[in-house]
Amino acid sequence: MIIGIIGGGQLARMLALAGIPLGLKFIILDPDKDACAAPLGEHLCGDYDDTELLKVMANKADVVTFEFENVPSSSIAFLSNSVDVFPSEQSLETSNDRICEKTMFKDLGIPTVPFANVENEKDLNSAVNSIGLPAIIKTRTMGYDGKGQYVLREAGDVKKAWDELAGVPLILEGFAKFQREVSIIAVRSKQGEIRFYPISENLHEDGILKTAFSMPDDAIQAKAEGYAKRILEHLNYVGVMALELFDTGEELLTNELAPRVHNSAHWTIEGAVTSQFENHLRAICKLPLGNTEANGYVKMINFIGEIPDRAELLATPSLHLHDYNKQARPGRKVGHATIWSSSKLK
Amino acid sequence: MIIGIIGGGQLARMLALAGIPLGLKFIILDPDKDACAAPLGEHLCGDYDDTELLKVMANKADVVTFEFENVPSSSIAFLSNSVDVFPSEQSLETSNDRICEKTMFKDLGIPTVPFANVENEKDLNSAVNSIGLPAIIKTRTMGYDGKGQYVLREAGDVKKAWDELAGVPLILEGFAKFQREVSIIAVRSKQGEIRFYPISENLHEDGILKTAFSMPDDAIQAKAEGYAKRILEHLNYVGVMALELFDTGEELLTNELAPRVHNSAHWTIEGAVTSQFENHLRAICKLPLGNTEANGYVKMINFIGEIPDRAELLATPSLHLHDYNKQARPGRKVGHATIWSSSKLK
Repeated sequence: MIIGIIGGGQLARMLALAGIPLGLKFIILDPDKDACAAPLGEHLCGDYDDTELLKVMANKADVVTFEFENVPSSSIAFLSNSVDVFPSEQSLETSNDRICEKTMFKDLGIPTVPFANVENEKDLNSAVNSIGLPAIIKTRTMGYDGKGQYVLREAGDVKKAWDELAGVPLILEGFAKFQREVSIIAVRSKQGEIRFYPISENLHEDGILKTAFSMPDDAIQAKAEGYAKRILEHLNYVGVMALELFDTGEELLTNELAPRVHNSAHWTIEGAVTSQFENHLRAICKLPLGNTEANGYVKMINFIGEIPDRAELLATPSLHLHDYNKQARPGRKVGHATIWSSSKLK
Repeated sequence: MIIGIIGGGQLARMLALAGIPLGLKFIILDPDKDACAAPLGEHLCGDYDDTELLKVMANKADVVTFEFENVPSSSIAFLSNSVDVFPSEQSLETSNDRICEKTMFKDLGIPTVPFANVENEKDLNSAVNSIGLPAIIKTRTMGYDGKGQYVLREAGDVKKAWDELAGVPLILEGFAKFQREVSIIAVRSKQGEIRFYPISENLHEDGILKTAFSMPDDAIQAKAEGYAKRILEHLNYVGVMALELFDTGEELLTNELAPRVHNSAHWTIEGAVTSQFENHLRAICKLPLGNTEANGYVKMINFIGEIPDRAELLATPSLHLHDYNKQARPGRKVGHATIWSSSKLK
């Protein structure tokens, strides 16, 4: 089978590394000639809306997936006419618009932070009045790694944020006083089989995930699974989905979903019987899902900007290095490491 | 770093899959244009003694290794003039000649089956007299997967085997009445660091490995490690080495060594913290070795000839498929599967 992937970054690279042992082949669309997944398959080097390249992908691939959510919806629609695309256009669109996403959470009875649609300054002021400060203003679409969002702490911030962001659709969200940020990664096959990974506990720095811990047997596991299940079934979802959550100690609030393999579950490569990457491929290829059970405990550390000295890293007991083979650049995710342990790490 | 590999079969393929996350790149020499490791690196398509291609490899690679032991020694000697080759020419030569190999075992005080060098029919008859029947006659060099060897059960077999094999250097070996065949896989770095994997228990069919079990905490572990350590240090060995052993219940006898990653330790991909493939690369790249501890129990099944139905296979709980992407052909190793368990499998 040939799998088309839109995007050729580290997620595509780890999908390919998981899929090659399954006998899968890959065709990857990415405008960057040095896309780090490209050497692992056939590289279609061009824009994500290049119709000629999309045609090549639709013709060659048995199924298409994507490694990031900001794929032009026209490209997904175009591909969907002639080849299976998983997750579906509808799943992608729902997750891409924070208002649609949070409205879905609400409709499904899944707790989330208070939120309001902001189309003009009047909307913003009335949202601030009803939600209160602190709050977070975000673009409705296209945000990731903390980009396109501001925390409003006092009245003066409201005007400043509006001046900066006016002109694009916005959402105001209440500020959750969480004790920890967690995520649950789930996978659903075309046939409707669902599996959940143990939750991850995530630490961010400057809006970028820095460290994640696998948390087998965490007290909130069942509740998080319940939320994810409702969403997966509602969307008739196929593939791996990540749901980010705030644990306030009293409540478990959904933050957002990512319709793809997720940085917070990179630990599953070493720390689960079947990795999120393999299970995403199994799901979209209509194959039975693999065991998502943990085989130990893992701490994952993202390398942002550059990878530390290799020999020093590898001298750390039970450390695995994942070098994405990307040029070092400030703020760029260039690799990660996991440290595996047979006993609990924190 | 760029790693040269002589041979582009499944062992090279799994080495590359383990090395890509470490940031390594591969250049692979194999005469088969469809060599299954070739898509994972630069493919030098030509004979193993093609001087022009060996020059390209020597120029581009930072270190060279091999995936099978029958590499022409002239090629290893040629490469060794300008680039590090691990394991060394001496390690390869010793393991390639059953007489040298068994003489080394004897010199190091490591128990092995009785053996005798056979250069003519007179040698054979006197060897049969001293060793007794049953015995096994083997070519001194170039044997693998049970090829080039015959079991001599009665006097009549001796003449027949001689008629068949005369003309090549031979060895007669006593027949070990073993309870089980096991192997220990060890790795030694350039700096002399040594790690051992839990032993594997191996079941053969028609001379080809069919099934292997990882055996953490087996009673013979310490004895097997002691044998392997003596050999690694004697040869100043660098890389992964496999030592095949007969467990007679009373004694642990060495059978032969393989100077490379080994089929009986494919379970280490899922069943050990660091796989044999990653550790071989760490060793030859002068990097610290990874943890060889088991993270559970694994049964490995070789697929000979063809791979069974994929969906049925993947429905087996905790099964991992390794499809080598080779054409189906009777007797050919085309893939393997592992089944992982948190508790003992046998």
